[in-house]
Amino acid sequence: MFPAFSQTKAKTAYFCEPCGNECDRIAFNKPGKCPHCGMALSLQSVATHEKNMNLKRLKVLFYLQNGVEVLDFAGPMEVFSYAGFDVAVVSKTKDPIVAQGVLKIIPQYSIDDAPPADILAFFGGAAGNATNDPAVIKWVQNAPKPEYYFSVCTGAFILGKAGMLDNLTVTTFHESIEELRKAFPKAKVLSNVRFVDNGKIITTAGISAGIDGALHLVEKVRGRDVAVQIAKYMEYDKWVPAQGLVVDKQIGTAK
Amino acid sequence: MFPAFSQTKAKTAYFCEPCGNECDRIAFNKPGKCPHCGMALSLQSVATHEKNMNLKRLKVLFYLQNGVEVLDFAGPMEVFSYAGFDVAVVSKTKDPIVAQGVLKIIPQYSIDDAPPADILAFFGGAAGNATNDPAVIKWVQNAPKPEYYFSVCTGAFILGKAGMLDNLTVTTFHESIEELRKAFPKAKVLSNVRFVDNGKIITTAGISAGIDGALHLVEKVRGRDVAVQIAKYMEYDKWVPAQGLVVDKQIGTAK
Repeated sequence: MFPAFSQTKAKTAYFCEPCGNECDRIAFNKPGKCPHCGMALSLQSVATHEKNMNLKRLKVLFYLQNGVEVLDFAGPMEVFSYAGFDVAVVSKTKDPIVAQGVLKIIPQYSIDDAPPADILAFFGGAAGNATNDPAVIKWVQNAPKPEYYFSVCTGAFILGKAGMLDNLTVTTFHESIEELRKAFPKAKVLSNVRFVDNGKIITTAGISAGIDGALHLVEKVRGRDVAVQIAKYMEYDKWVPAQGLVVDKQIGTAK
Repeated sequence: MFPAFSQTKAKTAYFCEPCGNECDRIAFNKPGKCPHCGMALSLQSVATHEKNMNLKRLKVLFYLQNGVEVLDFAGPMEVFSYAGFDVAVVSKTKDPIVAQGVLKIIPQYSIDDAPPADILAFFGGAAGNATNDPAVIKWVQNAPKPEYYFSVCTGAFILGKAGMLDNLTVTTFHESIEELRKAFPKAKVLSNVRFVDNGKIITTAGISAGIDGALHLVEKVRGRDVAVQIAKYMEYDKWVPAQGLVVDKQIGTAK
């Protein structure tokens, strides 16, 4: 166990990378690994660290339907967890769902008791189990408005069905581009882009592109340094920041 | 619904990409999406497709300990599922485990009833919950020998504790390289490599590097075309095949 000195008067100290647990707030007086979460300790300005800790901890709700793709949600779940966001899983009910026919998951919340979220996220893989369920779409429409909506892959169809993609530039899984265009003709659907950020609504391309979209959202709210640090920690070596489209309110106008 | 013609005499037909379900065997007479699994249909030689279908369907057991990292296992789970492998989750017991403090998972098997596997896979994130549990290590040592052992991130410590890394060249999570060297001094531990393949034992670097290692293992047993097709489908655009080390029996000799 390393000696911690939370009441330090030193200007710099060693802190673990944000893991979302209480140890994020512990100051250590030498490098090594955090004895609580196991993450590496890095030298930081105490003032900057305290400022970061006072940032609001964002609540992210992952809506997972039965049949959801594993990597669609697991990439963003990893990224948002390392950003220190408070991540939870919601589904139509609290009954177990099976992701990709393999992974049996127990949701924390149902649509009847899900708390308000800062980020509401949707994923592909049997997205029809959400889009064809009026109770789910009604929940998406009526849930307390989050700061950001985020979709990976064919999760975009869920946002579309809830009427949220009209007049926006968006993207989806490469094999579902035409289908999304037909389903939501008021949206401008782009292919060959990792993510499209409309300010409040971020849609990403398929499966592993969710990692890039999540890193972009972290960069947007916590800064590029934090996003780069997370990508490095995850050994997502080939990540290129900002490799997506950020649009102004006017359709298709890149910033 | 597309018309299927499994009894076709045609030389070519449209088949869905291998998803591991029965629809893998259905021949369609025009392109589109598989009405069963939703995957794109591609034109293939009927003879080649039948030959591929007769390949043994590999059984992959994912050992997941409480606290396992989500992306560590989700990347390989996605890759192996698309390769048509039969993937299942085993843990010490069938009680739910929580991955990364967020994702509550119900294992299909416990170490007491896990079936024999062709690939036995281990992952990082609280790996100590496995390495410090004599019953788990005994199971790893005594389980019917698979064709391949596969580890991602600090999952290498589980193989090491079971005595399987001696005299091999291996890798692990970038921040655990020194720790693995100290724990298993008979192993040659490399840094800055996405994966190391010793023939029967494949270890990968941290977290997202598991995707690369899994694609490598698919390439090894099903050929590069299948691995490239899966990477493309997953939109893992920047994947570079063979970006790892394949060693001969002699330590550190690259093929």
